[in-house]
Amino acid sequence: MTEVRKRRNTEVPMREALARAAFELFLDRGFERTTVDDIVARAGVGRRSFFRYFPSKEDAVFPDHEGCLVEMTAYLEANTGSPDPVGTVCDAARIVMRMYAAKPDFSVQRYRLTREVPGLRTYELSVVRRYERTLANHLRAHGPKGPDGSLRAEVIASAVVAAHNNALRSWLRAGGEGDAEAAVDHALSLVRDVWGTSGSFGTPAVTALPAGLPEGDGEVVVMVARKGTPVWRVVQGIESALGAPPGTGGA
Amino acid sequence: MTEVRKRRNTEVPMREALARAAFELFLDRGFERTTVDDIVARAGVGRRSFFRYFPSKEDAVFPDHEGCLVEMTAYLEANTGSPDPVGTVCDAARIVMRMYAAKPDFSVQRYRLTREVPGLRTYELSVVRRYERTLANHLRAHGPKGPDGSLRAEVIASAVVAAHNNALRSWLRAGGEGDAEAAVDHALSLVRDVWGTSGSFGTPAVTALPAGLPEGDGEVVVMVARKGTPVWRVVQGIESALGAPPGTGGA
Repeated sequence: MTEVRKRRNTEVPMREALARAAFELFLDRGFERTTVDDIVARAGVGRRSFFRYFPSKEDAVFPDHEGCLVEMTAYLEANTGSPDPVGTVCDAARIVMRMYAAKPDFSVQRYRLTREVPGLRTYELSVVRRYERTLANHLRAHGPKGPDGSLRAEVIASAVVAAHNNALRSWLRAGGEGDAEAAVDHALSLVRDVWGTSGSFGTPAVTALPAGLPEGDGEVVVMVARKGTPVWRVVQGIESALGAPPGTGGA
Repeated sequence: MTEVRKRRNTEVPMREALARAAFELFLDRGFERTTVDDIVARAGVGRRSFFRYFPSKEDAVFPDHEGCLVEMTAYLEANTGSPDPVGTVCDAARIVMRMYAAKPDFSVQRYRLTREVPGLRTYELSVVRRYERTLANHLRAHGPKGPDGSLRAEVIASAVVAAHNNALRSWLRAGGEGDAEAAVDHALSLVRDVWGTSGSFGTPAVTALPAGLPEGDGEVVVMVARKGTPVWRVVQGIESALGAPPGTGGA
């Protein structure tokens, strides 16, 4: 036990020291012109230590994403029974924003560096894709079932990630000024409004009103639905009530 | 003029010949073990010719995406006046599926190759990101304005791309069997149902019914909206009518 604790205590600082040394050099000399040898020399460790913590130079630029993915996965697992899986994945996405907001200066500098280095941009895309897949897997397992369950899971996960990243990018572009958490809350509310379940009702009741409505005025739709019905279900109901032409709607 | 025409005539076949030679070698020997020298040797051209057409080996695996992006951009530009910009970007996304469906065997083989080569997967992510950005830019310029215009544009574009790719992947996994176009239509209808504008009405009319409804039964919501009101507007109206608690909805 003492052995394990000791190892952990030195591991975290060494990983951080390497990431810090790497980042300073990337800012000073540029990402491409910095070698792993430069990084280990500055951190005062051997070359092998670098690869023990980071598979590549790119990974050293984003040292917190692995931990963030672990945290996100744990959060999702702890909330598998939620009646509002869309709300759960929105809350899981907030973990990423909190990681950025915890180190505003670093996050902003890294954002600027990433804009300049194509290799870092593609690295970032693959990280984003992993978050998206993690959220989609949760929705696939715990969201509404049915033939379109997987499709819906992927569409919602990607909408959540896009909303989150829109808020994150605005905050980064503004130099880390402003309330990052409020911005992401606002962005995610757009997705929640459209896709979320505010209640746990499984069976929607969407009813077209009986005939006799002013059909001539024609431009009014009346919908009746149980509270808590997911919006997509309401939409489905509206369309089937209206007899929407195939291809423009309906599943 | 003769000079120009002559050059074009040889350029297209040479590009195709290089892409074909590259792909055959990738399937035979693996992507990593194939060099550019191997490719030009098989195609019977000089090394410089390869880089004239493809910046990298990865680009030779996806020779049609550049042309597809050009076609998509032209389609979007030709439809800037559409009253249904979400429908327009859905139709623009279909161009990508048509490109895959035009060469089912090649598309399926490439899909399998891409699953095995991490470098190709990241390349593909960056291509997908370019499509997504193209669609988002169109929605930003031609979709509903307002403080959330950019947010909404990015969320919808990413939902369109996710829906499209879900259908595309299912078709590829099924070995290119089945109706690719019908699958993508179905997937996109999910996004259209939620985000699309079926008419050109700018002003939504969402009204809470007057007091006196059976509040005790409580679980029913009645909405009245003009036909053609975008769904997100209806949702906003419903929420404000219900006095949804902050954080769970509303902009």
